[in-house]
Amino acid sequence: MRALTFDKTLSFDARRADPIADDGDTLIKVRQAGICSTDLEITKGYMGFHGVLGHEFVGEVVSSPNKDLVGQRVVGEINIVCGRCDLCLSGLSTHCRNRTVLGILNHDGAFADFVRLPESNLHVVPKTVDDDSAVFVEPLAAAFQILKQIKLDGRKWVTVLGDGRLGLLVAQVLRNAGCPVRVIGKHPEKLTLCEKWSIRSRPLEDIQPRHDQDVVVDCTGSAGGFELAMQMVRPRGTIVLKSTFAAGKPLNLAPLVIDEIQVIGSRCGAFKEAIRALTEKQVDVASLIHRRMKIEQGVEAMNLAGRPGVLKVLLTME
Amino acid sequence: MRALTFDKTLSFDARRADPIADDGDTLIKVRQAGICSTDLEITKGYMGFHGVLGHEFVGEVVSSPNKDLVGQRVVGEINIVCGRCDLCLSGLSTHCRNRTVLGILNHDGAFADFVRLPESNLHVVPKTVDDDSAVFVEPLAAAFQILKQIKLDGRKWVTVLGDGRLGLLVAQVLRNAGCPVRVIGKHPEKLTLCEKWSIRSRPLEDIQPRHDQDVVVDCTGSAGGFELAMQMVRPRGTIVLKSTFAAGKPLNLAPLVIDEIQVIGSRCGAFKEAIRALTEKQVDVASLIHRRMKIEQGVEAMNLAGRPGVLKVLLTME
Repeated sequence: MRALTFDKTLSFDARRADPIADDGDTLIKVRQAGICSTDLEITKGYMGFHGVLGHEFVGEVVSSPNKDLVGQRVVGEINIVCGRCDLCLSGLSTHCRNRTVLGILNHDGAFADFVRLPESNLHVVPKTVDDDSAVFVEPLAAAFQILKQIKLDGRKWVTVLGDGRLGLLVAQVLRNAGCPVRVIGKHPEKLTLCEKWSIRSRPLEDIQPRHDQDVVVDCTGSAGGFELAMQMVRPRGTIVLKSTFAAGKPLNLAPLVIDEIQVIGSRCGAFKEAIRALTEKQVDVASLIHRRMKIEQGVEAMNLAGRPGVLKVLLTME
Repeated sequence: MRALTFDKTLSFDARRADPIADDGDTLIKVRQAGICSTDLEITKGYMGFHGVLGHEFVGEVVSSPNKDLVGQRVVGEINIVCGRCDLCLSGLSTHCRNRTVLGILNHDGAFADFVRLPESNLHVVPKTVDDDSAVFVEPLAAAFQILKQIKLDGRKWVTVLGDGRLGLLVAQVLRNAGCPVRVIGKHPEKLTLCEKWSIRSRPLEDIQPRHDQDVVVDCTGSAGGFELAMQMVRPRGTIVLKSTFAAGKPLNLAPLVIDEIQVIGSRCGAFKEAIRALTEKQVDVASLIHRRMKIEQGVEAMNLAGRPGVLKVLLTME
């Protein structure tokens, strides 16, 4: 099969062996996949991953122990879990101690013709949600995760820091939850998108941090973003840390103590809520698509996705 | 008056002018004061403070707008607040935007014969609490603050990281709250103290972090301690960050996101609870006293307090 792989270098492989769906796995023919910042981080060495990249996808079931699934269009949760460890048994299966993670940790990903996953990871996509939308279920679910982690009732001032792929999904989800959200970003064309959605936005250079935000969601993926978040949030406020970064420079965490700030790390999320939001057209994902490219152009597509200001680059397996 | 001052260098001043208790302040004759890690940090440049050091004290009221206070033995909360800003009005007065902080920020501290504070900062010390205990009210209140910030019901595994002055107070407070606490430290003689209190303890070198603690309270005051806390806490667990540190090296916060950890900064606290605990002899502070020294020996006392393994050094103003 065709696949975009990383093993010290990124390359397109036209003749990779198809995955074998053993152990009761379901085999899926990938239709479309999305490039995420995590994929870009992996090519810089994050997680020490090697294999087929990609964890945002929509595809069609080819074979499965569950015959009802065959032929269905599905998206998939990315954590492949054991179901037996202390964390699985206590309801924290996304943190399974023995987990592999699609395209991130010891499990080949979805930038390929075929991918395998346990049936329990799969969600059937309603017909009204097209492939272009379905490919956003995974990152949108990550945005919905925030609503499971913090109470937003009565929070007056919520800032999303970062106008990238994830930030713009988070902003829409929080706005829909009834928060008066403001997005801070660097890219005028993305902030214009916010306007279109009636979400307030401000260019980064206009910001004077005043320690007055109830909640700051850091989607910048940079140490500088986290430092700014500490300056923007009010004492006893909350920073939701949504993206990973290697600090690269000494970070002073004293403001967390002095201002008694709460920081909450937030990762994978709520697929059902994301699918429902797309079914009900509550979130605009179409505007986030920068370009569709064929899997053969995968290396070029990754380079493009890494450029400042570029939103979602999709890989198609037509 | 006599005072221990910091202004680029630390020095004993035998002839510092007495503080003037204007604006309705209360004037207190200091009886005894405790040296805290924050005092040591200040002499390394923390907060850019200059003036009289010291914020843990017990003293006797000399003059006050409240005549009932005169002659009473008191301890004092360290934040001097405006009562008018948005944070004061919303019940977060310890975070007052216009605050000064005793011996830390624009307000002369208690390593001196006299100190001034607003009456509203003062708490009368019951007769059954002697000076040696009363001088611990401030740091003990900081330990009690944790109970106001996180729910501990049903938490099975709680680790206090650091067997210093603050860590040993925190461990006792959490133990009294019904948590099965474990203290991790570097100093055998301090870990022996834990044994005496029936608190489990382990030397740092015996620890293999397993991502299995529900709560880790980081009292190490070091970037290394925080990194260890991230390795010890379970996914979706809580790190309480109790002490400030300048990282000194790049900190990788990715574990916070991957494990969806909650970090809560924790600072000043609950004086009433601390005084009650000392009145009821629920906390052993006497064992934490390393040495009493006269204010004239203040420079030497600070050096001593900065040595590894040294617990509380008290300054007396006899």
